[in-house]
Amino acid sequence: MSYVAPPEVTEDMLAQGTSKSELSSWQQLLRGTISGFVLSGATVMAILAAEEAGNSLVGALVFPMGLAVVVILGLELLTGNFALVPLAVLEGRARLSSLFRSFGVVLAGHVIGGLLCALLFAAWLTEFWTGGAGLLIDGLIDTAEEKTLAYQDLGMSAGISLALLSGILCNWLVVLGVVMGMTSTSTTGKLAALWLPIAAFFYLELEHAVVNLFVIPAGMMVGADVGVVDWLVWNQVPVLIGNLIGGFFLLGLPVYLAFRTKQEDLPADAAEEPSEGL
Amino acid sequence: MSYVAPPEVTEDMLAQGTSKSELSSWQQLLRGTISGFVLSGATVMAILAAEEAGNSLVGALVFPMGLAVVVILGLELLTGNFALVPLAVLEGRARLSSLFRSFGVVLAGHVIGGLLCALLFAAWLTEFWTGGAGLLIDGLIDTAEEKTLAYQDLGMSAGISLALLSGILCNWLVVLGVVMGMTSTSTTGKLAALWLPIAAFFYLELEHAVVNLFVIPAGMMVGADVGVVDWLVWNQVPVLIGNLIGGFFLLGLPVYLAFRTKQEDLPADAAEEPSEGL
Amino acid sequence: MSYVAPPEVTEDMLAQGTSKSELSSWQQLLRGTISGFVLSGATVMAILAAEEAGNSLVGALVFPMGLAVVVILGLELLTGNFALVPLAVLEGRARLSSLFRSFGVVLAGHVIGGLLCALLFAAWLTEFWTGGAGLLIDGLIDTAEEKTLAYQDLGMSAGISLALLSGILCNWLVVLGVVMGMTSTSTTGKLAALWLPIAAFFYLELEHAVVNLFVIPAGMMVGADVGVVDWLVWNQVPVLIGNLIGGFFLLGLPVYLAFRTKQEDLPADAAEEPSEGL
Amino acid sequence: MSYVAPPEVTEDMLAQGTSKSELSSWQQLLRGTISGFVLSGATVMAILAAEEAGNSLVGALVFPMGLAVVVILGLELLTGNFALVPLAVLEGRARLSSLFRSFGVVLAGHVIGGLLCALLFAAWLTEFWTGGAGLLIDGLIDTAEEKTLAYQDLGMSAGISLALLSGILCNWLVVLGVVMGMTSTSTTGKLAALWLPIAAFFYLELEHAVVNLFVIPAGMMVGADVGVVDWLVWNQVPVLIGNLIGGFFLLGLPVYLAFRTKQEDLPADAAEEPSEGL
Amino acid sequence: MSYVAPPEVTEDMLAQGTSKSELSSWQQLLRGTISGFVLSGATVMAILAAEEAGNSLVGALVFPMGLAVVVILGLELLTGNFALVPLAVLEGRARLSSLFRSFGVVLAGHVIGGLLCALLFAAWLTEFWTGGAGLLIDGLIDTAEEKTLAYQDLGMSAGISLALLSGILCNWLVVLGVVMGMTSTSTTGKLAALWLPIAAFFYLELEHAVVNLFVIPAGMMVGADVGVVDWLVWNQVPVLIGNLIGGFFLLGLPVYLAFRTKQEDLPADAAEEPSEGL
Repeated sequence: MSYVAPPEVTEDMLAQGTSKSELSSWQQLLRGTISGFVLSGATVMAILAAEEAGNSLVGALVFPMGLAVVVILGLELLTGNFALVPLAVLEGRARLSSLFRSFGVVLAGHVIGGLLCALLFAAWLTEFWTGGAGLLIDGLIDTAEEKTLAYQDLGMSAGISLALLSGILCNWLVVLGVVMGMTSTSTTGKLAALWLPIAAFFYLELEHAVVNLFVIPAGMMVGADVGVVDWLVWNQVPVLIGNLIGGFFLLGLPVYLAFRTKQEDLPADAAEEPSEGL
Repeated sequence: MSYVAPPEVTEDMLAQGTSKSELSSWQQLLRGTISGFVLSGATVMAILAAEEAGNSLVGALVFPMGLAVVVILGLELLTGNFALVPLAVLEGRARLSSLFRSFGVVLAGHVIGGLLCALLFAAWLTEFWTGGAGLLIDGLIDTAEEKTLAYQDLGMSAGISLALLSGILCNWLVVLGVVMGMTSTSTTGKLAALWLPIAAFFYLELEHAVVNLFVIPAGMMVGADVGVVDWLVWNQVPVLIGNLIGGFFLLGLPVYLAFRTKQEDLPADAAEEPSEGL
Repeated sequence: MSYVAPPEVTEDMLAQGTSKSELSSWQQLLRGTISGFVLSGATVMAILAAEEAGNSLVGALVFPMGLAVVVILGLELLTGNFALVPLAVLEGRARLSSLFRSFGVVLAGHVIGGLLCALLFAAWLTEFWTGGAGLLIDGLIDTAEEKTLAYQDLGMSAGISLALLSGILCNWLVVLGVVMGMTSTSTTGKLAALWLPIAAFFYLELEHAVVNLFVIPAGMMVGADVGVVDWLVWNQVPVLIGNLIGGFFLLGLPVYLAFRTKQEDLPADAAEEPSEGL
Repeated sequence: MSYVAPPEVTEDMLAQGTSKSELSSWQQLLRGTISGFVLSGATVMAILAAEEAGNSLVGALVFPMGLAVVVILGLELLTGNFALVPLAVLEGRARLSSLFRSFGVVLAGHVIGGLLCALLFAAWLTEFWTGGAGLLIDGLIDTAEEKTLAYQDLGMSAGISLALLSGILCNWLVVLGVVMGMTSTSTTGKLAALWLPIAAFFYLELEHAVVNLFVIPAGMMVGADVGVVDWLVWNQVPVLIGNLIGGFFLLGLPVYLAFRTKQEDLPADAAEEPSEGL
Repeated sequence: MSYVAPPEVTEDMLAQGTSKSELSSWQQLLRGTISGFVLSGATVMAILAAEEAGNSLVGALVFPMGLAVVVILGLELLTGNFALVPLAVLEGRARLSSLFRSFGVVLAGHVIGGLLCALLFAAWLTEFWTGGAGLLIDGLIDTAEEKTLAYQDLGMSAGISLALLSGILCNWLVVLGVVMGMTSTSTTGKLAALWLPIAAFFYLELEHAVVNLFVIPAGMMVGADVGVVDWLVWNQVPVLIGNLIGGFFLLGLPVYLAFRTKQEDLPADAAEEPSEGL
């Protein structure tokens, strides 16, 4: 009976949102850093796999290993928190100040993890910036340029709106993966349930703020013609906002409203089940 | 012992049919909307995967992620309800008025979910209707035209009959997937059991009314030469009726008749097992 | 502990053989009809997948979805019964008359299911016999002709002997799949255990009477140059006899003899475990 | 908690070695025959898959279905017994005479199963030796010739030593697969754990005596230019000895020594757990 | 409920670190030898698969079978111990002298296992150094040369730094795989959870000291133009140090700090759960 039915999933979403908001800043930072690092590694592997196979579905099918680790090891993921923590606030189980602290600290962790991973991989790929070439360097450069300059080419209004829309669609799928990961009490079940929604967002080349905190600076470090301002203006900021909108309004809130039964209506054991990790 | 034997599956079909008919209209609408949205996302991914690989089996093998989410998260799916709710009515566990209300409200949810998802994806793909090109746009246009104009070419009688027949064959497989999803109490088991029947209907290009509520308008929004009347007359209406016939008469009813043992003959625990979600 | 050890598997074979022989004729007929229908759908998908990929292993790997449904939903399958019911008769747990009734009624169900499915798919593929073309029509025609005319070309004695031999080898693998499906109490385990033996028989193009009750008439309905007598003489009858021989003498009986421990030696709970479905 | 930890695996190895040595000769013979037959079928499928795909990894990935059936159904496998039964003798839980009886009788079963399967498949493939052609006949002929004449070309000393060495490396992997199959109490877990070590030996074209009891005579029956003496001298005898050495000295004994804790140190339930079947 | 939540995983990391440090030197040596042998076999298969498919992802996807066996059978792996044993020392549950003994003895086991496996495979591949050719020999030679001479070409400082950095990145992923293997109590779950992080390090061609103890000498034995000093200076020594740094500082320590809750805060059953094997 490893299946977890929807009302318990909804309760688990609230419990996780609550416990995530209560975690010490130090552990939020550390878990956010590890998770940024892990997602970066998965991105590297996925980009290489897509380039080598000449078929991006191959990359998309290995990519979810990163989010799988994040979910299984109960690390912090800002884009997932975008859906879970506001629900806890809505039910009065977390304070708004905790929400802001959590968002800020986890984001800081992602920045540290993404940049550190970018630095290490860039050093390794370019043999300490003395040379180096290959599919992976090309892939990182292309990705970084597409994710910034392509929006810039559309002009301010359309470009930023498109990045925002891409972020909205993306995080609907990411949070769907996170929620699917709660539908099983077995590790295999969690992996199987979250895999394809996550593969989908990567395959459709939608914008995920945490991945971009690695992939754009990594591309810049190995030679992409992208500046820090380009990165932040044309991608990072609008995508972050889009992720917040998509995660909360397209998935977290509708699922909550569609399944939420009042606390007192739940059987005692479900309501008291502690949410560990994730 | 995650396997669920047929008599309990049959009881679960009835219990789900009953509980679905009793759900509040608001939750029916919301769950139908989410499920329309999720099936749309899976369709987008499957079309792109088929186009990119040049082999539609690849698309068919990723497509079931949508129905998997619907089943695992216990969302509402009209084509599944076509088989389950009438059985509950037949046994006197649901009223006919509830059946009509459920069918209507869930359909409304699918319309909202499908059109909203079509709008968002079309805006993103066409960069707000300013341009955009690629495999996915081509795939959506081709799909929308094949699913309407190809029937129109056959003339009124043959065209509509063929759409109806395609809908019948389709929903036999969809409901088979839904029922297979009840044969396990583990999330992995549910996924494994429902996967291939769902892949089969997509692979054989059979007509599924809920998918079509997204894929035809999405194709129209990105440039398919299809009108609203074409969509409704040559596809949506006959397919919906075909889905109802196929789901109930080719699968729901035969399975019910083949396995139904009277309530009082079942061991007490099986009969009292509550059907949650799905 | 989802693994089921061999002595219990043997007991389960006997228990299923017994309960299958005791089922009402009406339910035998209905379950045989559904199972003929389901195997037909799997065959259609497998033929198309093999044709599209140009590699028949691809078809073979999706084909077992049909038998998987039959096993998981506890439907009746004549070729499986060929091994199970005679064992129950041998142990005095079923009567010979029940065996004949079961074989006859389930066969009738397969005939109805196979022909109905052939009719629906042929109508759909040929657009009500007005046209239609494609890989699937070619695949069905080729299959129907190879499965009949190729034996005819060898002459009466060799042709019929070869069909018989092919039926023997085939059903050794089919029953192996059915028995493997009993080695687990989890749905995933059943699926994983039965998958490859079933894929093997399809891949090696061995003759399975129930599949042929669909695939040969379907081929005939879409244009194969095969007559009803060709179908029955060169394939259906010898294959059915071969399936009986292979299923019972190459698998059912040897496995029974190799593992059967007397009823009284088994722990009470194993001996009393009811066999539900399958 | 389907995972079985190493100390219990070691105890299970001993318990199986013991019970295998105590089985009646009749059941040893029958189980050895079935297992020879099943491994032969898997070999046929793997050879065809490798030939058709032009990539032998494809064949290697389907091949383990044979050993999987042997392990799951608790059949007898001489090469596995090479590791397990001597350990039971070493601990005084089985007699040396039982070991010799077991080895001899199971070998006889493999000979019967392999030759019978070879005969049936050769008759079918060659249409009763009247013709027949195709990838599978070519594959069987090539395999039989490579597995004998290639060693002969190297001369007596090097050829036989190489066959022996290949047998040593092979059975290290086969027994690894058998032991991995004991690390889970779930059927899926057993399958997943044993799959790749078995695929590895087939992929590396290492020599397995039981497979060769089918594949070489089958090749000879469909036209390979190999004599019975070639088969036995250049392959069967040295490979059998190599399998014994590799199975016991490279895997069975080291694993036993690395994990064996004295019987009395184990918790009572582990020590008393009966070993059923393989 | 096969999922193991992060706080228990952290406790398991400490318990394993402790029990590994307490194991007798004889068992450490034997387990290290077996594990070196097993990883070598997996490397051979992965290299051949990558060469044959012309796509190194294929090799990477079969490679984790080696580490899977190591984790499931509870063998010793130096690179995993680099993360686990220091944590046990840090918490005062193991002595520093035990750490040094463990590291040294397990390394000795890996040297024996790797070289013995290299010798056996080289003898087999080259037909006792009389000839032999093929994809596998080419693959081993290329790998050995790339893993040494490529670093030498960069000069002392950059070359050794790059090997060190590659070792750091590699063992972050290896230890991630080892830790993921602790997140499930089912064998299937362990396999699924550890698979992709291990595939990632192989796919990215990062340097793993234990694999290199086989693959470089094996390459040298079949003809690579690499000397023993090249092997040790340009690869083995810096990679070993990099593995220690990456395993402990990039994964073991951060995960420990991010999840460690004091022993007394844990529920009694989790704290008392014995860590068996691995």
